[in-house]
Amino acid sequence: MNSYFLRSILCSALCLLGTMLISQDDSNQQDIDAKFIKDIHNQILTNGECYDWLTDFTTNVGARLAGSIGSEKAVVFMESKMKTIGFDSVWTQECKVNYWERGEKEEVYMTSPNTQRLNALSLGNMIGTDGKVLEAEIIEVKGLDEVEALGTEKVKGKIVFYNRPMDPTKIRTFNAYGGAVDQRVYGASAAAAYGAVAVLVRSMTTRQDDVPHTGTSIYKEGVKQIPAISISTNDANLLSKTLVQGKVSVSIKNNSKPMGEKTSHSVIGEIRGSEFPHEIILVGGHLDSWDVGAGAHDDGAGCVHSLQVIRTMLELGYKPKRTIRCVMFQNEENGLAGGREYARLSDEKGEFHLAALESDAGGFVPRGFSFDGHADVLKPFYKHVSQWLPLLESYGLQFSTGGSGADIGPLKSQKGLLIGLRPDSQRYFDYHHTDIDRIDAVNKRELELGAAAMTSLIYLIDKYGLE
Amino acid sequence: MNSYFLRSILCSALCLLGTMLISQDDSNQQDIDAKFIKDIHNQILTNGECYDWLTDFTTNVGARLAGSIGSEKAVVFMESKMKTIGFDSVWTQECKVNYWERGEKEEVYMTSPNTQRLNALSLGNMIGTDGKVLEAEIIEVKGLDEVEALGTEKVKGKIVFYNRPMDPTKIRTFNAYGGAVDQRVYGASAAAAYGAVAVLVRSMTTRQDDVPHTGTSIYKEGVKQIPAISISTNDANLLSKTLVQGKVSVSIKNNSKPMGEKTSHSVIGEIRGSEFPHEIILVGGHLDSWDVGAGAHDDGAGCVHSLQVIRTMLELGYKPKRTIRCVMFQNEENGLAGGREYARLSDEKGEFHLAALESDAGGFVPRGFSFDGHADVLKPFYKHVSQWLPLLESYGLQFSTGGSGADIGPLKSQKGLLIGLRPDSQRYFDYHHTDIDRIDAVNKRELELGAAAMTSLIYLIDKYGLE
Repeated sequence: MNSYFLRSILCSALCLLGTMLISQDDSNQQDIDAKFIKDIHNQILTNGECYDWLTDFTTNVGARLAGSIGSEKAVVFMESKMKTIGFDSVWTQECKVNYWERGEKEEVYMTSPNTQRLNALSLGNMIGTDGKVLEAEIIEVKGLDEVEALGTEKVKGKIVFYNRPMDPTKIRTFNAYGGAVDQRVYGASAAAAYGAVAVLVRSMTTRQDDVPHTGTSIYKEGVKQIPAISISTNDANLLSKTLVQGKVSVSIKNNSKPMGEKTSHSVIGEIRGSEFPHEIILVGGHLDSWDVGAGAHDDGAGCVHSLQVIRTMLELGYKPKRTIRCVMFQNEENGLAGGREYARLSDEKGEFHLAALESDAGGFVPRGFSFDGHADVLKPFYKHVSQWLPLLESYGLQFSTGGSGADIGPLKSQKGLLIGLRPDSQRYFDYHHTDIDRIDAVNKRELELGAAAMTSLIYLIDKYGLE
Repeated sequence: MNSYFLRSILCSALCLLGTMLISQDDSNQQDIDAKFIKDIHNQILTNGECYDWLTDFTTNVGARLAGSIGSEKAVVFMESKMKTIGFDSVWTQECKVNYWERGEKEEVYMTSPNTQRLNALSLGNMIGTDGKVLEAEIIEVKGLDEVEALGTEKVKGKIVFYNRPMDPTKIRTFNAYGGAVDQRVYGASAAAAYGAVAVLVRSMTTRQDDVPHTGTSIYKEGVKQIPAISISTNDANLLSKTLVQGKVSVSIKNNSKPMGEKTSHSVIGEIRGSEFPHEIILVGGHLDSWDVGAGAHDDGAGCVHSLQVIRTMLELGYKPKRTIRCVMFQNEENGLAGGREYARLSDEKGEFHLAALESDAGGFVPRGFSFDGHADVLKPFYKHVSQWLPLLESYGLQFSTGGSGADIGPLKSQKGLLIGLRPDSQRYFDYHHTDIDRIDAVNKRELELGAAAMTSLIYLIDKYGLE
């Protein structure tokens, strides 16, 4: 018996059992809930503002790496937006972020056997060449272990070129990303440990195009810091093909550098619960983006999704029993300072997050939610699934277990339910951390449906709790 | 008890029952099938050619209204493509199509109270103004019944402006299209019957933009033929807003005209079945498109999907038991001549189509399949669902009842199963029948996943039959 099959049996049995136990009273509630969830969708698909907000945000604020001028503009923009929406209270929360600057546009060339400029972006937190030209022979590897196997003799003085592609056969593209991103995050120090002078990393996307993708990269303590550059998949293919014929050299000139600590802020708003104000239901995304493009999908979408949840509840006259808190975390991309600080202060105040829902996988058609948390909360939650799933599946939504969101992860110790919105993932890595993650990559209806899915689930959790 | 809930009970019970009845033998088959369906997906996501074919087709053939030079180029292109793929036989099938020509670019203006050019496209089959300027006051209506209610007194001499939008709250956008498209198809004669001199029709899309959408329109016999023009939703909103202030006039100048009957062709290829060659499993789409854009989603996607199904079976060394026939129907957009002629000849030859699967809803992420057919075939088919669904649902695919495809509809009398691929519908009407339905509107992975879903289902039907 294969695993799909086993899952189907379990799911069917669970649903049937749940169904059999439902009383007439529950059934009336189901009708009320179905009607309200329809109202939520109608409201957002007819009068939703999230697309207009995102257009405004990405056009007038744009790129907003934590600590940059853009990130401070983003704080002001969203704080002011929250104040117009009707939250009971809105505030900002300070956090210390490590700021990094790209500097002037990278100049990266294949210099031998042919001369060709490569589409390149320095990786986040990495140093540059200090504006000087660094030129060396490249050596292609498929992963960190291969560098180790090659050793100092073959690596010293070279530019290591990480070229293991994201696996296109993974249906959920985040799994393909997870299987390749170690090259970007740890590749620089892994190569420097054997004397490499720089690294090139194939962009994290399954697309074949000219668009380089940046993203966070981390130096290991005690290892020499070297430049690390992402190149487009077309250019990675070109280098790899050229290497088949013989030696290839590349030159790099850039002046990226870490700029030390800066003060920044997350932005928070809440509506106090009427019955259980101490049970917090968090809905959020992250405010920061990388320094290229406009962070439309990553994670402008999550920010406007979260605003739309609150706006819609207010517009429909829904009075939450629990406190609904909208959090736009600072610095998810490059250190998670906002998420960590939020959880630290929340723990310090003795708060309890009954549930936290993060949208940080783009503004695409929602396919469902993934759930994570302590067994203490997951077990009672499963009881609700048989009643909630029929309400959501006609909107194409499913429930699954799995990761939730980086920013809300530090809240896990509060033993609430952690939830991730799962939009369709096929196009996410076309845009992720690139110059083309802009408003024209976002479809209005797809964005709106994500907000409607989130509002529907928050409504159910607020109404029924999780016991 | 609401309907979602009832459906959930039935579905759960069905799945559970199916599951309980499955023997060890069946379970081994499930493993084999799961493995083969994974192979299909891996093959297409790694080496699929459908996106390259579609790029070539839309770039080098482009628009291909049935009867046009483009449509004959399309026949040659696809016949030749089929011959390179390894079908047992490839042929074309003649049909008679009514050809229509747009003529020179339409000139449509709001002339009073302000002058503004409108983004407009004549509707298919409609006459033009013979190159003269037709100017008249417009009168806005929300539907055909409103024209009747207004009567000759208010309609005579006017241009009737149909402005009932597609309902954005329908989650499946095809339902919204179905609820609005009568204005486009029947609006001209409905207005002419009361003396209107022309009609304007709001474009069939939920988007607010400047892109006009064309499409088929039909004159009623015995009613005066008048020009019928689609305008963009932005322009429709502008006219409607301007009408609130007072009278509005519009001028139309175009020279569209029906050009009479032409001979055209559908393109067909098949692999003969090894065990049951007389049971035909059809997979197809339509070859023609409208005369604007390049018909990438509508229905280039369906054509390359269908080619990919056959290619992948051959690449994986799968020998079908039944005859798999790939059909690219001519003239779906404007008369269905290819589909009707195909069924007529098939009936004449005494053929039996066990199943027919059409892809004509775009190259977006597949969400499942809809099924239609006589009770004789649907009843035994449901028996298979409990075994097939677990194999497909990990790819995000669901089964539902509903329409299949216009071209395969005439095969219904053969009492086989009619199936429609159901891609996600959110973006379909952004591009439908427009100048922007081009290759850059298609995502490679989404297109490939559609082909993989179709190949998987065709494999299951071929292997197990439908008894």
